[in-house]
Amino acid sequence: MIYADNAATTKMSKTAIAAMLPYLEDVYGNPSSLYVTGQKAKEALENARVAVARCIGAEPREILFTSGGSEADNQAIRSAAAIGKKAGKTHIISDAIEHHAVLHTLKKLEAEGFAVTYLPVQENGIVDPAALEEAIRPDTCLVTIMTANNEIGTVQPVRTLGEICRRHGVLFHTDAVQAVGHIPVNVKDDNIDLLSASAHKFHGPKGVGFLYAKRGVRLENLIEGGAQERGLRAGTENVAGIVSMAAALEEAVGNMAQNSVRLTHLRDRLIAGLSDIPHSVLNGDAAQRLPGNVNFCFEGIEGESLLLLLDDKGICASSGSACTSGSLDPSHVLLAIGRVHDVAHGSLRLTLGEDATEADVDTIIEAVKAVVAHLRSFSPVWRDLCAGKTAFIL
Amino acid sequence: MIYADNAATTKMSKTAIAAMLPYLEDVYGNPSSLYVTGQKAKEALENARVAVARCIGAEPREILFTSGGSEADNQAIRSAAAIGKKAGKTHIISDAIEHHAVLHTLKKLEAEGFAVTYLPVQENGIVDPAALEEAIRPDTCLVTIMTANNEIGTVQPVRTLGEICRRHGVLFHTDAVQAVGHIPVNVKDDNIDLLSASAHKFHGPKGVGFLYAKRGVRLENLIEGGAQERGLRAGTENVAGIVSMAAALEEAVGNMAQNSVRLTHLRDRLIAGLSDIPHSVLNGDAAQRLPGNVNFCFEGIEGESLLLLLDDKGICASSGSACTSGSLDPSHVLLAIGRVHDVAHGSLRLTLGEDATEADVDTIIEAVKAVVAHLRSFSPVWRDLCAGKTAFIL
Repeated sequence: MIYADNAATTKMSKTAIAAMLPYLEDVYGNPSSLYVTGQKAKEALENARVAVARCIGAEPREILFTSGGSEADNQAIRSAAAIGKKAGKTHIISDAIEHHAVLHTLKKLEAEGFAVTYLPVQENGIVDPAALEEAIRPDTCLVTIMTANNEIGTVQPVRTLGEICRRHGVLFHTDAVQAVGHIPVNVKDDNIDLLSASAHKFHGPKGVGFLYAKRGVRLENLIEGGAQERGLRAGTENVAGIVSMAAALEEAVGNMAQNSVRLTHLRDRLIAGLSDIPHSVLNGDAAQRLPGNVNFCFEGIEGESLLLLLDDKGICASSGSACTSGSLDPSHVLLAIGRVHDVAHGSLRLTLGEDATEADVDTIIEAVKAVVAHLRSFSPVWRDLCAGKTAFIL
Repeated sequence: MIYADNAATTKMSKTAIAAMLPYLEDVYGNPSSLYVTGQKAKEALENARVAVARCIGAEPREILFTSGGSEADNQAIRSAAAIGKKAGKTHIISDAIEHHAVLHTLKKLEAEGFAVTYLPVQENGIVDPAALEEAIRPDTCLVTIMTANNEIGTVQPVRTLGEICRRHGVLFHTDAVQAVGHIPVNVKDDNIDLLSASAHKFHGPKGVGFLYAKRGVRLENLIEGGAQERGLRAGTENVAGIVSMAAALEEAVGNMAQNSVRLTHLRDRLIAGLSDIPHSVLNGDAAQRLPGNVNFCFEGIEGESLLLLLDDKGICASSGSACTSGSLDPSHVLLAIGRVHDVAHGSLRLTLGEDATEADVDTIIEAVKAVVAHLRSFSPVWRDLCAGKTAFIL
């Protein structure tokens, strides 16, 4: 099996599993308890906080552990909105290609009276910093723009965007779920006030993530209750998961430079190979993208059939976000970069893992070529295109 | 070490750990993905849902997986409040000894315009059903009363309370975090509309729990985003944690009858032994309490010192809730059952696990006797009491 869906989730690293086990088995105390086994759990929790903070250039007290990236996104955006509301500022700026954890939270805030400007992205899937600067109003309280897109892998000019926000005194949140552990992220250098991340995207466990909030940015609870996480996130801490996340992140950051070079080479080889397929197009900027991300549209193809036939050939891929699979709507990201409905339906996302090889990439290229040709041989859309009954779009 | 703080958290069972491992190691796919490894994860998730539902007499579609009991409490109460608000009903009934996950959520709702009646409890720590019936108003939308208390272990007459709610057409939520896996809970028989539970209280992992919502009770998202959990709880599912929780719950429910008899015997032996200590009092009803829960106040004692000296003797215990440790306020539960401030500070909660033995209980009794006598020998409060300068209260 070639697992090429690392944007959906990653296989836990051996390091991450090994780090977890003692906290499942022996050090099971509640970190809020006074006795030794509780205090050992507490110590592990705080060591994990130090490690996570170090990996993104934050202070330990700026890290809040959550159940994942979606919870962190919700809490970050709701907190910034609450700060804005108190100051009479109810305008938020985001963009058209955010994850639904951001977009749906913003929809709810719109229903509560906030105004949201969704910046368009350019055809390469990148937000134009000048467009952000223009959109900022005196009543803007928050800008929330992701670091890297989960479908097309485009990496935003976060440092520039953050600098614009800081200059205007506007809070800047970034959903960095796809970025943390994969590309350098430094909250101080990048002028970030709030950042969300998820362990299972960098070879840690599912069900755990973190929220960075710059000192002085007052968080609102999403989950009320006990005094855990300085009273900002109730619920007994997932000690094993948190310790494992920290170990996974340290490992990912430690190997990042090396993995990045390898993955970029493999990614570009895959892009070159798939570009040979007639009437195919790469989605998102060819260079400003995550090292392992490849996303193509193939005209005349129905995405789900493509995935199922690739699965038969032992290749795990997706059409876009795992979080929206099952939905029949085409990807809002592909529509935002200008793909028409029919074409957006024929998308394929391949996200390589650190263990991918050139041989894997070549196998994928041959498999996709074969499956696309096979599907097109049945496709009425494709037959119409070839017969000149409709126009090719790509 | 004798671990007697099973209300704070439990050691994972071997079954629960074994159930988890394959989903950390091999079946790592995202359950939303179409390919085989994703669908295997999805299947495991749905099997876990069937198992959890069966353990509490629910339908699988009535079970929503969460990151724990606190999240489930927050979502249940917020959802019921939203339903009430739409119908113009903004009165909620709860009681004085709820967990803070309930109380703090209610405080927030009060700030948003809801009225909350907090029923008192009787000196035995039980809510009087007649008081509930009297408190229900035409604008009552929700009653939230816990199944079993986390500090004093008292078990509420849930079936009767639920029956009153149903008769009045009011939604009934119960925080069953301490009850599920320990005493029989059947949502249909007990007339429960919403129920919260947490895996780490019944030998499952930390960071996972569930919310039961009766068919037709419309939940509001606490976490917005992807379409997971039928769109009601966003975020990639914690597959390993959920599968492990289901295994732990099935095991706990399977052994419940047998464990309950053993634990009740040990609990009563412990209560009898500690009752020999002069100026001690059992908190909560002697019979209507969880099988493993013992909670005492010792006059003239400072709770934290008691715990630290017991820890030195290898006994893990607590003064009350782990979620509020670090707070200097006396327990709201002990105040609610009529303990005065000074006495409430000298509380000790011992919660036995299924592996406890008679020898453990006898060791605990001797240790507590020795530590209480030792502390009292230094205690100015105790010397004043003995010298007749102040009155004994117990």
